[in-house]
Amino acid sequence: MARLAQIVIFGASGDLTARKLVPALLRNFEEDNFRGPIQVIGVSRTEKTDAAWREELSSWIPESQKAVWERFKPLLSYKSADSADPRQIEALEGHLDSLALNAGEEPHHVGRLFYLALAPGLFAPTVEALSKQGLVACEPDAAEGWRRVVVEKPFGTDLGTAQTLNHLLYRHLREEQIFRIDHYLGKETVQNILSLRFQNAIFEPLWNRKHVESVEISVCETVAMEGKRGAYYDKAGASRDMMQNHVLQVLALIAMEPPSSMRPDAVRNEKVKVLESLRSFTPAEVHEHVVRAQYAKSDKRERDYRDEYGVAEDSRTETYLAMRALIDNWRWSGVPFLLRTGKALHKRFTEVVLRFRTPPLDLLNGPLPGDVCPLRPNDLRILVQPDEGVRLSFLVKRPGAGMVMQHSVLGFDYADLGTGPTPDAYQRLLLDAINGNPTLFIRGDEVEAAWRFVDAIRAGWEANDEPVHAYPAGSKGPAIANELFHGCEGIWSEGP
Amino acid sequence: MARLAQIVIFGASGDLTARKLVPALLRNFEEDNFRGPIQVIGVSRTEKTDAAWREELSSWIPESQKAVWERFKPLLSYKSADSADPRQIEALEGHLDSLALNAGEEPHHVGRLFYLALAPGLFAPTVEALSKQGLVACEPDAAEGWRRVVVEKPFGTDLGTAQTLNHLLYRHLREEQIFRIDHYLGKETVQNILSLRFQNAIFEPLWNRKHVESVEISVCETVAMEGKRGAYYDKAGASRDMMQNHVLQVLALIAMEPPSSMRPDAVRNEKVKVLESLRSFTPAEVHEHVVRAQYAKSDKRERDYRDEYGVAEDSRTETYLAMRALIDNWRWSGVPFLLRTGKALHKRFTEVVLRFRTPPLDLLNGPLPGDVCPLRPNDLRILVQPDEGVRLSFLVKRPGAGMVMQHSVLGFDYADLGTGPTPDAYQRLLLDAINGNPTLFIRGDEVEAAWRFVDAIRAGWEANDEPVHAYPAGSKGPAIANELFHGCEGIWSEGP
Repeated sequence: MARLAQIVIFGASGDLTARKLVPALLRNFEEDNFRGPIQVIGVSRTEKTDAAWREELSSWIPESQKAVWERFKPLLSYKSADSADPRQIEALEGHLDSLALNAGEEPHHVGRLFYLALAPGLFAPTVEALSKQGLVACEPDAAEGWRRVVVEKPFGTDLGTAQTLNHLLYRHLREEQIFRIDHYLGKETVQNILSLRFQNAIFEPLWNRKHVESVEISVCETVAMEGKRGAYYDKAGASRDMMQNHVLQVLALIAMEPPSSMRPDAVRNEKVKVLESLRSFTPAEVHEHVVRAQYAKSDKRERDYRDEYGVAEDSRTETYLAMRALIDNWRWSGVPFLLRTGKALHKRFTEVVLRFRTPPLDLLNGPLPGDVCPLRPNDLRILVQPDEGVRLSFLVKRPGAGMVMQHSVLGFDYADLGTGPTPDAYQRLLLDAINGNPTLFIRGDEVEAAWRFVDAIRAGWEANDEPVHAYPAGSKGPAIANELFHGCEGIWSEGP
Repeated sequence: MARLAQIVIFGASGDLTARKLVPALLRNFEEDNFRGPIQVIGVSRTEKTDAAWREELSSWIPESQKAVWERFKPLLSYKSADSADPRQIEALEGHLDSLALNAGEEPHHVGRLFYLALAPGLFAPTVEALSKQGLVACEPDAAEGWRRVVVEKPFGTDLGTAQTLNHLLYRHLREEQIFRIDHYLGKETVQNILSLRFQNAIFEPLWNRKHVESVEISVCETVAMEGKRGAYYDKAGASRDMMQNHVLQVLALIAMEPPSSMRPDAVRNEKVKVLESLRSFTPAEVHEHVVRAQYAKSDKRERDYRDEYGVAEDSRTETYLAMRALIDNWRWSGVPFLLRTGKALHKRFTEVVLRFRTPPLDLLNGPLPGDVCPLRPNDLRILVQPDEGVRLSFLVKRPGAGMVMQHSVLGFDYADLGTGPTPDAYQRLLLDAINGNPTLFIRGDEVEAAWRFVDAIRAGWEANDEPVHAYPAGSKGPAIANELFHGCEGIWSEGP
């Protein structure tokens, strides 16, 4: 039984808290996942009572959980404070201490998780205020009295701002105390990339340049700039909003070497090696290997991206980004990683496709003429969302006389495990943060390596004044992105 | 359009003709698989009219095929003859010639397939009589006027008798004219072993001693000595009735190197290499690596094998045979091939299981104590009958906090192709024989290599006076057969 943990959520009135964080805590409570007692303290500038905050939150709780919610609710309290104001943080400390004492615990024995569900501009001042008040000081690797900070995305807007933020955090915290969140790593199917690769013996021998012809990673969305999203998005674009974090994190898990163990830093050491081996494109390579585009109105959407609320009229922000990335290491040299992400596309899906090389000899047909592409018999598809599963395609003989081959699929769906719906990413990540396991959080050097790669692309766009292509909203993206596939490599996946 | 082919079935009154051969010809006719016109001539000693023979056969035709049967029936005629009597064969020739002339074909242009659905003792005299009459003479690789002989199993009862039969056949026929049948090779799922291995690129890199820990091949039957089977079976036993042919043929397809092409001799050259690389056991190795047994009465069957009709009271014939075979070549050295076949077992199934080695490192648990067997995450199962499909087992993370692994299966069933039931083996094999494609027939050197392996086992039994173990009818076989698996290799498959 662990000591009391206090979970302090800054940004308690926000959307993320109500939609994701509190439901994730509730689900862990319901499943009895916490190792000890917890208290949840909501903090934001608005004045409100505990009762009012609980009432706000309860509208997000489904009917089926109302009973457990009644038991959980008393663990929630609210404190109004400006997180960047040291005086108000002092008052918060008093509140936390008295909550601990009421629960029969000395405050210095209690673990404290500060969750920064805040606008990025408030990350630094809040950590500074917490530090000034001594609220984040603890012994290294402390089992009790620990102090940790969860930092939401975006972590910087480029390498420079990320480095500045890292430097500031390191003035007040050790890396082990910093939990940079990327909710993609909390997804079951993303974690399962590691299990699939390293708990089985049959995939790893094939998982390299000798057998893999190309790797495709797609994070496709159908949503566009619904609500007031445009104002934020127009400053970010697909490169910062999705590529730098989600797509590159999935790529790192797919491409990494086997770690020496599952210890957090053993895994993260291998991930950062991949990100550092990603070829940093020259402007000429950006021109050749990267396509950016904006959606245009179509029968699926009535407005061009530039006409969306909050978007600049002359915006050059990309809502679609596709590229042919290269990893310059022994395992992957020469194997294209075709990465794609975008909004307002034909289908919502996240998927990884490993396409295997053709057999060296076609026994049925013999050598083909040079200009004919042989059938690719095998690919392995890892479906991340919304479908969750694995598909291995192969050729089988069609029953009957003669040798006619037919594509077939060895399939597996997580739903078939019969373990119910896979847990929400935040449920897993919050529990890991409380338990002090940072494996599924991004280390400082990872975030910087990812920015270095994305910054080079953005610099190439600037240097070349690269065009922003257009694609009809609801389509598969700009046709020019198909040229990122060469020769017989195939085309972008249609999704599951 | 090919010339007329005359299919002459010796043994026309027999079970095989009515149950298998004529239905297989009918099905090919229905599916329009023949490249030219055909005539089917039944031959046996009994006097009967064409109409009587057709009437006999029609009772085996299902209602759904009655219409096509009416169209097919006129192609069938009957001729009574003793196949070993040259004078009667002369009369048969006159009959065949006049049938050809009636169809507007010169007899020397017509192709002729002589199917020996006869007792093995009649193979040699029949071929001699046919040869004496000049009925099997043709140009090498003749496209018309070809003459071929299909020889049913068993082909000899040991190496000596098989060699004698081969020598006799070679006096009258070239190897290309001889079609030694093993109906297992006509099964879709058996042929698909080649497709699976060589039309895909993902299996072959794993298909060797580096990645495969063991291979299991099972041909299990529930039937025992129903009817009058005992008299034949007691002289054969599992080693001759199933191991020498079906099991070793499947083994050859599983273990062979990629052929240079799908030409018949390219495939058969590779198969014979496997059979010749099978370690020929010394008596000491027979003692260590082979188990034979007879079924005993149980609640599933009222009689011991020795009390069956036609079986000797002191019979030492094995109704069950299991072994740990070894293939001494570069690909398979040291990998045990666990072979098993038997009657009166718990379940009817034919299956191949490739068990893959464990990953070199268990990332979750670290090194295990030496006396604990790690979980085997991966095996590939090829289901031959009655289920037809492929299963690839692997470990996946159980959804939820923590890294708990769970066995899952990537599955494929032929039924899902939606191409209807897979064709009967004889349908394919008869068509191949008529078309002159011997790929799925056993070459003379193959049959001899298989006998050489089986003879060494039988010699070891003699030399050591090895025990004949007992197992209850309807059980999984004798417990002692489990000892053929060593260390952490597992146990015999339960079947699908």
